[in-house]
Amino acid sequence: MNDNAIIDSRTDQAGFFNAARAILGDKGLITDPDDIEPWLTDWRGRYHGKALALAQPANADELAGAVRLCAERAIPIVAQGGNSGMVGGATPDDSGTALLLSTRRMTDIAIDADAMTATCGAGAILQVLHEAAEAQDLRFPLSLGGKGSATVGGLVSTNAGGTQVLRHGVMRALVLGLEVVLADGSVLDMTSALKKDNRGFDLKQVFVGSEGTLGIVTRAVLKLSPAIAERRVAVVGLDSLHRARELLLHCDAALPDALEGFEVMPQSCIDAVKAYNPDTQDPLETRHAWYALLEFVADRAGAEMLGERVEETLFAALEKGLGDDAVIAANEAQAEAFWTIRETISPAEKAKGPAAQHDISVPVEKMPDFVEAATKRILADHPDHEVAAFGHLGDGNVHFHVIAPRGADAAEWGPATGKDISRFVYDFVTEWGGSISAEHGIGQDKRDVLHATHDPVALRTMQAIKQALDPQGILNPGKLI
Amino acid sequence: MNDNAIIDSRTDQAGFFNAARAILGDKGLITDPDDIEPWLTDWRGRYHGKALALAQPANADELAGAVRLCAERAIPIVAQGGNSGMVGGATPDDSGTALLLSTRRMTDIAIDADAMTATCGAGAILQVLHEAAEAQDLRFPLSLGGKGSATVGGLVSTNAGGTQVLRHGVMRALVLGLEVVLADGSVLDMTSALKKDNRGFDLKQVFVGSEGTLGIVTRAVLKLSPAIAERRVAVVGLDSLHRARELLLHCDAALPDALEGFEVMPQSCIDAVKAYNPDTQDPLETRHAWYALLEFVADRAGAEMLGERVEETLFAALEKGLGDDAVIAANEAQAEAFWTIRETISPAEKAKGPAAQHDISVPVEKMPDFVEAATKRILADHPDHEVAAFGHLGDGNVHFHVIAPRGADAAEWGPATGKDISRFVYDFVTEWGGSISAEHGIGQDKRDVLHATHDPVALRTMQAIKQALDPQGILNPGKLI
Repeated sequence: MNDNAIIDSRTDQAGFFNAARAILGDKGLITDPDDIEPWLTDWRGRYHGKALALAQPANADELAGAVRLCAERAIPIVAQGGNSGMVGGATPDDSGTALLLSTRRMTDIAIDADAMTATCGAGAILQVLHEAAEAQDLRFPLSLGGKGSATVGGLVSTNAGGTQVLRHGVMRALVLGLEVVLADGSVLDMTSALKKDNRGFDLKQVFVGSEGTLGIVTRAVLKLSPAIAERRVAVVGLDSLHRARELLLHCDAALPDALEGFEVMPQSCIDAVKAYNPDTQDPLETRHAWYALLEFVADRAGAEMLGERVEETLFAALEKGLGDDAVIAANEAQAEAFWTIRETISPAEKAKGPAAQHDISVPVEKMPDFVEAATKRILADHPDHEVAAFGHLGDGNVHFHVIAPRGADAAEWGPATGKDISRFVYDFVTEWGGSISAEHGIGQDKRDVLHATHDPVALRTMQAIKQALDPQGILNPGKLI
Repeated sequence: MNDNAIIDSRTDQAGFFNAARAILGDKGLITDPDDIEPWLTDWRGRYHGKALALAQPANADELAGAVRLCAERAIPIVAQGGNSGMVGGATPDDSGTALLLSTRRMTDIAIDADAMTATCGAGAILQVLHEAAEAQDLRFPLSLGGKGSATVGGLVSTNAGGTQVLRHGVMRALVLGLEVVLADGSVLDMTSALKKDNRGFDLKQVFVGSEGTLGIVTRAVLKLSPAIAERRVAVVGLDSLHRARELLLHCDAALPDALEGFEVMPQSCIDAVKAYNPDTQDPLETRHAWYALLEFVADRAGAEMLGERVEETLFAALEKGLGDDAVIAANEAQAEAFWTIRETISPAEKAKGPAAQHDISVPVEKMPDFVEAATKRILADHPDHEVAAFGHLGDGNVHFHVIAPRGADAAEWGPATGKDISRFVYDFVTEWGGSISAEHGIGQDKRDVLHATHDPVALRTMQAIKQALDPQGILNPGKLI
């Protein structure tokens, strides 16, 4: 680069900053590297990037203006919500050419209690949405570990899952309307409150889960449910994952409107949680190969009968041999303690040392066989490793972690053995008709794996859509597609 | 065109027929104009076209082969299911250049009772699907007048509605998986049975309702519900549509899991049905400005209590003044008779003479005001006309018919006054934040209206998607987009 080019680039940059500041105001454009720094690394510390600047528009109009400006200058844009994604999807690359665009100032939440909807700015925090809904005797039935930082825009863009999917579906199922700023800065308003509308292609679902590569979500209309009036949380000890699946079918048939969560964890995960947090109480007095964590809920109409119905259902399950022992939480504190075990598995497993983690799914009915077969194959090749498979059995989604031998060096193990293991897991799950990414998405983490394992027709079709909606390729380059 | 061109075109046509027959077999390619003729007119007789030939592939492979052949020669393709659409979407234009592609031989239906799904070939008939589901104590909760001819492929491509949308949603909500043949003949398989799958853009919903302009649906995995064990059908007489809306809210709050249908009809529609079919019994002994037709259902678990709960709910509604008179059908025959009144409105209104019919929606809570305001405006300008607004109040979807004065000449009235009225209705509904097509789609019927009234950003985005997926423009040209 010669001196003139440097001067040009500086002038350009100053010109861009001036134009951006005119749109976003002083509060809306951060150029001080120290202030930007915290947002350039993903929360798990696995990806680090650079950015030209950080834009924080106050509303969709400002955001659209910033995108138009970037489109004119072909400046890449990386949208970011709570920066709590799992696949580096909101972290820019290290070229420093991209504008980091945070939605965190767009936090408005409007609850329509009659329509049972919440209209949220992209930056609204999940936990704040929960509280806003509860204040009106309603609830937003999607929750996950990062609820204190995850934003509505991020949840939509990553099609988030969580622990209530069994009954309420993933984020996709809860999005009624969407407003998206397209790559040229125009605003596509899909927030219509119409229940029936057959005016051409419905594009909402294309943007849900597109990780900021097709447009930037600025607003979402979300479906709410009646508030929970009563819940019952139970733990059942089981001798196999097959038995857990039968228990799930039993409970789902007996209490289809009440069964809201069905998580499974092996004894080794319970042990890891106890080692990590010695205050942890065993959920059952006896040890079992597997544990199922069940949550049943009822709104006001069904509250009175819930306890009795859950007791009957679990009693019948034990009678049928679908479990060796069971306990229903006696109170809210115990219910919370059961859930805390489940939620502590991730940090507890992390504390054991380096691991290859896989967020995968297979058709629900194949899950027990898959876990058994995959575990066997991995331990045959790596007998000193440990497999921890836990998660959302009801959704066919398991977090499949393979943990390196104690004392393994992460920097050495990860790129060699860890990578080999992941390659095997992704090929194996694809062979079983499953997905390499059940709920965490693709981002920069799984882009190569996606392209290596996915149906070429689907990839080609996605590429055609990407080219159609973002011909300059400025939206979140290097992610997903 | 010179003689050589004619010979070329004949040779080309013969070559195309030979190549098509090699893929489709003798049974799969119909070239005799007499055999094609019945499929060239839409069932309402409003559109008539011509076709090069009629292809009837036996399966998705044959269908894909036929599309590849058309793609090589840039031959347009018009897909057709039961030919029972409302907007001429499956009728070719009159150039005679298009291949009419019928899915009617692809009729396979496989019910998975455990998973509560039906996997259907595009040509499976809705009524046959209903019966297949019922045989396994399940049901497919979407029904409409044309169920004896409507195909699954057509229902998906038009995102059909019907009378159970209030509880189960439109077709879009019932599609779990889809297989689509793209414009280049490649097969996009989106039938994965995974409950959670975040491998990039979810394209299923783009094809639902795209009327054969983006791809041809060959297979769909549909969501089933538990069979109905008990139902209650009621008619309530009301003094206004506002009161009907309040009654809807009351019933929906009291019996959210049971209320499945909520239709409204004015006295004039009942009178029209009685004139059309003199055997019709009045549903109530007294006359009312409006009638609501309500259907409540329960599966086995809720069957026992249903009757009592419905009685209590309707009794409370009358006490609150949300209705002037009510009757619950005493038996299935009476329930059917109530529904027959509703289903006879269309032919009965048609018998009155020429009418401008509009399948429109507005946000549910605005519906009563809209109908009142639109009726007033039309009668002010056309005092000798009659307005019949009836339909799915619970979905904000009303069939808004404006009937010409008795004795009006259809050929004269339709293109003049009728057209003016329709233009007013479409502009007025757009002004109210509504849709010019709630459930019937766009096809060739409403294409101009769509382009005149719809958001330019949405239209531009649809066009970009169309260009990306069908760059030659061979899929159902002249329809929708």
